[in-house]
Amino acid sequence: MTNKGVFDLKGYLTDKKAIVDKALHTYFPQPEGPASDVIRAMRYSLFAGGKRLRPILCMGGSEAVGGSGTDVLPVACSLELIHTYSLIHDDLPVMDDDDLRRGKPTNHKVFGEAVAMLAGDGLLTEAFHLITAEELSDHIPPRAILKVVRMIARAAGYGGMVGGQVVDIQWEGKTADFPVVEYIHTHKTGAMITASVTSGAMLAGGDKSQLQAITSYGEKIGLAFQIADDILDIVGDSEAMGKTAGADEQKGKMTYPSVLGLEKSKKMQSELVNSAVDSLKEFDRGAEPLRQIAQYVIERKK
Amino acid sequence: MTNKGVFDLKGYLTDKKAIVDKALHTYFPQPEGPASDVIRAMRYSLFAGGKRLRPILCMGGSEAVGGSGTDVLPVACSLELIHTYSLIHDDLPVMDDDDLRRGKPTNHKVFGEAVAMLAGDGLLTEAFHLITAEELSDHIPPRAILKVVRMIARAAGYGGMVGGQVVDIQWEGKTADFPVVEYIHTHKTGAMITASVTSGAMLAGGDKSQLQAITSYGEKIGLAFQIADDILDIVGDSEAMGKTAGADEQKGKMTYPSVLGLEKSKKMQSELVNSAVDSLKEFDRGAEPLRQIAQYVIERKK
Repeated sequence: MTNKGVFDLKGYLTDKKAIVDKALHTYFPQPEGPASDVIRAMRYSLFAGGKRLRPILCMGGSEAVGGSGTDVLPVACSLELIHTYSLIHDDLPVMDDDDLRRGKPTNHKVFGEAVAMLAGDGLLTEAFHLITAEELSDHIPPRAILKVVRMIARAAGYGGMVGGQVVDIQWEGKTADFPVVEYIHTHKTGAMITASVTSGAMLAGGDKSQLQAITSYGEKIGLAFQIADDILDIVGDSEAMGKTAGADEQKGKMTYPSVLGLEKSKKMQSELVNSAVDSLKEFDRGAEPLRQIAQYVIERKK
Repeated sequence: MTNKGVFDLKGYLTDKKAIVDKALHTYFPQPEGPASDVIRAMRYSLFAGGKRLRPILCMGGSEAVGGSGTDVLPVACSLELIHTYSLIHDDLPVMDDDDLRRGKPTNHKVFGEAVAMLAGDGLLTEAFHLITAEELSDHIPPRAILKVVRMIARAAGYGGMVGGQVVDIQWEGKTADFPVVEYIHTHKTGAMITASVTSGAMLAGGDKSQLQAITSYGEKIGLAFQIADDILDIVGDSEAMGKTAGADEQKGKMTYPSVLGLEKSKKMQSELVNSAVDSLKEFDRGAEPLRQIAQYVIERKK
């Protein structure tokens, strides 16, 4: 906040990203020992310049219900590990076969496919090691942590992200209707974004109606985020994004613009953002970061 | 046990395998919905006729410290999910490139590489969903469950199984010395076997000295198990194993026989088994299954 009480989103995102980056460096070992290559590969993608949106949403969820944000730091970081693993596996030749990610060669281009796949496996596994850190169970009831582990595992698994990825791959190059693209987006991206913000609020002790509101917020910005990604792929700047614009169309990916058209997709993302902000109307200024992030999600350039 | 009090290992393994198989069918959904292919792929490998050794060790760990065995069933099953994921990823062309597993075509041969990789990801993720089932936290302290999640994640991750896999791949076709092959075996196989038996004992309330003894037992049979695998690959029968004998040598894998020779390897596995059984000398007959399993580990034909 500035001294005028106007919320400074840019400063908030910068501060929170720095906190997450520092924590990830603490949690993550330096590459040493016989398996140092896989540690190097994990670190390569983990520190490749991600926005840390999921950790920030987790901390924002905590703040919205009166938590400190940093009280949920290990879980916030674990979400970034899961996100990073999903990008590494998604980029592999058997999946999207991408050479660039955030302007850098993808993991398998640097470390080879076998080590890249294992680095993804290692990150996903390490996420659950981190969530269960004693640092967390010192001040948060173990039963609440178990619930959060369960929720995150569901959101990341076949009923969430993995389910979305498999449908995404299987419909490539085919003509699908709206329910299919909605399934892909809500599962591949939406489920983990929703779990991110909800986990923060759950761990910080949000009550039932607060958690419902936060979950509704998460579902809406999760979908808006993916529609924004689809739109960026059409109108965005390759350099700013660090990946090739137009890649979705080239691969025959199911996207909102391909099914609904560009204008209707833009209208839909705006409506989702308004509706997400509206979900938070009962919250005080502790939810201001989440309100502002909703807008940021569709205005970002990368 | 028979009425003469002689422990019937074969009956014990059959009974326990049936319990695990039944539970896995209950926990695991039927393939339906848009992502049904990945569920089908997960089920294909999960129900491909595994021995269920890790779940049985977990239940045996519980029984050794006075638990019922079935009290830890969700965790026991989650260990099989992790094991199955590791086999699917290991069999992929970028890793070991195997066509047969347990006498059936490997996962990617049936479902394609993308779905197979995602099926592995889905199984690993679902394991952590299952460990945190309320069915477990109803009767086991949540803090103990968190500790077990943490231990299993460590054993499965870059400091355990994933670390072992990456070194295994990287040393293929090269000449290594004893420390490398020891690292591969203790990490790739040993870590999860140790975590299996220890998790059961931890959840069932084993005390510190019991857990130390059980962990020592696990480390020894874990290594003995992998040496036995190496030996089976040389002297075993392809049909009984459901995979091609001699594959390790063909691929230039680091094995105990390749580094120490066959006779020395056989001697070593026997010594490990004796030492494992010796670790359990303070336990009563509740540990009889574990004692017998130690011997079974090196006498099995597949």
